[in-house]
Amino acid sequence: MDATQTRPKRMPREVRERQMLDAAVAVFARRGYRAASMDEIAELAGASKPLVYLYLHSKEDLFSACIRREAEALISAVRGAVDRGAPADRRLWDGLRGFFAHTAAHPDGWAVLHCQARTHGEPFALEVAALRQQLVDVVTRLITETAEDGGCTAPLPETEVSGLAHALVGAAESLAGWSNERDGAAPSERETAATLMNFAWSGLENLANGRRWAPVGA
Amino acid sequence: MDATQTRPKRMPREVRERQMLDAAVAVFARRGYRAASMDEIAELAGASKPLVYLYLHSKEDLFSACIRREAEALISAVRGAVDRGAPADRRLWDGLRGFFAHTAAHPDGWAVLHCQARTHGEPFALEVAALRQQLVDVVTRLITETAEDGGCTAPLPETEVSGLAHALVGAAESLAGWSNERDGAAPSERETAATLMNFAWSGLENLANGRRWAPVGA
Repeated sequence: MDATQTRPKRMPREVRERQMLDAAVAVFARRGYRAASMDEIAELAGASKPLVYLYLHSKEDLFSACIRREAEALISAVRGAVDRGAPADRRLWDGLRGFFAHTAAHPDGWAVLHCQARTHGEPFALEVAALRQQLVDVVTRLITETAEDGGCTAPLPETEVSGLAHALVGAAESLAGWSNERDGAAPSERETAATLMNFAWSGLENLANGRRWAPVGA
Repeated sequence: MDATQTRPKRMPREVRERQMLDAAVAVFARRGYRAASMDEIAELAGASKPLVYLYLHSKEDLFSACIRREAEALISAVRGAVDRGAPADRRLWDGLRGFFAHTAAHPDGWAVLHCQARTHGEPFALEVAALRQQLVDVVTRLITETAEDGGCTAPLPETEVSGLAHALVGAAESLAGWSNERDGAAPSERETAATLMNFAWSGLENLANGRRWAPVGA
């Protein structure tokens, strides 16, 4: 006999947990970590508070689970958007579109990662730092390969590549917040990605080809 | 008779307050707003706790005063570095050097502004948003003037200029943190500014001259 038929109203645990995490992300994004209440999260999830504690243990564990889930979803969206065999500018363009499509579709998840998770100490800050490092790694590889393709006679110094990668990730983070906050007048993910592509690609391409800006008379 | 001569050991209030703010910025940067104790701040300032409360009223007021002072110092450093009559690339270069010189010289102040002040709700988040808006305004004006100088036949759309300004400010914020965290191997303010100048200037110049990146086959 099929167990699902004998208990038709019982939801599988993974479905319940997903609903709890969805509710928690929404509440943490709006209220912040400290002000968020387990009562509100349980109510929004349509579950009893004891069940939330049974499945996800504590507010701290629940917040960690939210960060981990949202971070993994974002990095998967970026990686999944990029065809590793495409030219470098196309890879950057696709990666940016994947990033902004995801942050626009999941504004609460992005708010938890970018605004809430950073300043409530360990272990949350570490989880977000790990996500950021993954994004920086993706961009670092892209810049290194662009420089190699560009026939740059001397490779870009490691410190400079690291700085460029942090500049691009910081610009993308800033634009994700900017785009999500423009209520009613939000640009599409394609427009936001195009703005950043136009901003960043020329400089990266020039550096990859050994062309640098030099201050006049300095 | 001169009052300062009759009480030679009494420090002027503004000196005392400056010492208290210096100590508070250091403690808030290291411990975070919530974990910071007024005892530690008073001790580091070499003042009694009642005197700290007499002059600066509460931990909340003290944190606000720190944010305001550090924000004003940073925006002054950027504005003071820029010669309004210089060409656009020189103005950006000078502004970036002013920014990174200041964040490198005041890492605790930058940590308070960028990491601590953002997520403890009002009124702190508003103070930092006001600073960020001032930086965005400086960059917006620069981009608009660059486009005008560039002989761009059609002006850049307002949304795009706003996006570019947020991208540049986000990149600068990210690089300030990156540079300050590279203990022992921190690049100079000049190197960090050069990295961002090389990253950002080509794209801005191209846009100002009506040259855009276009995806192949898209």
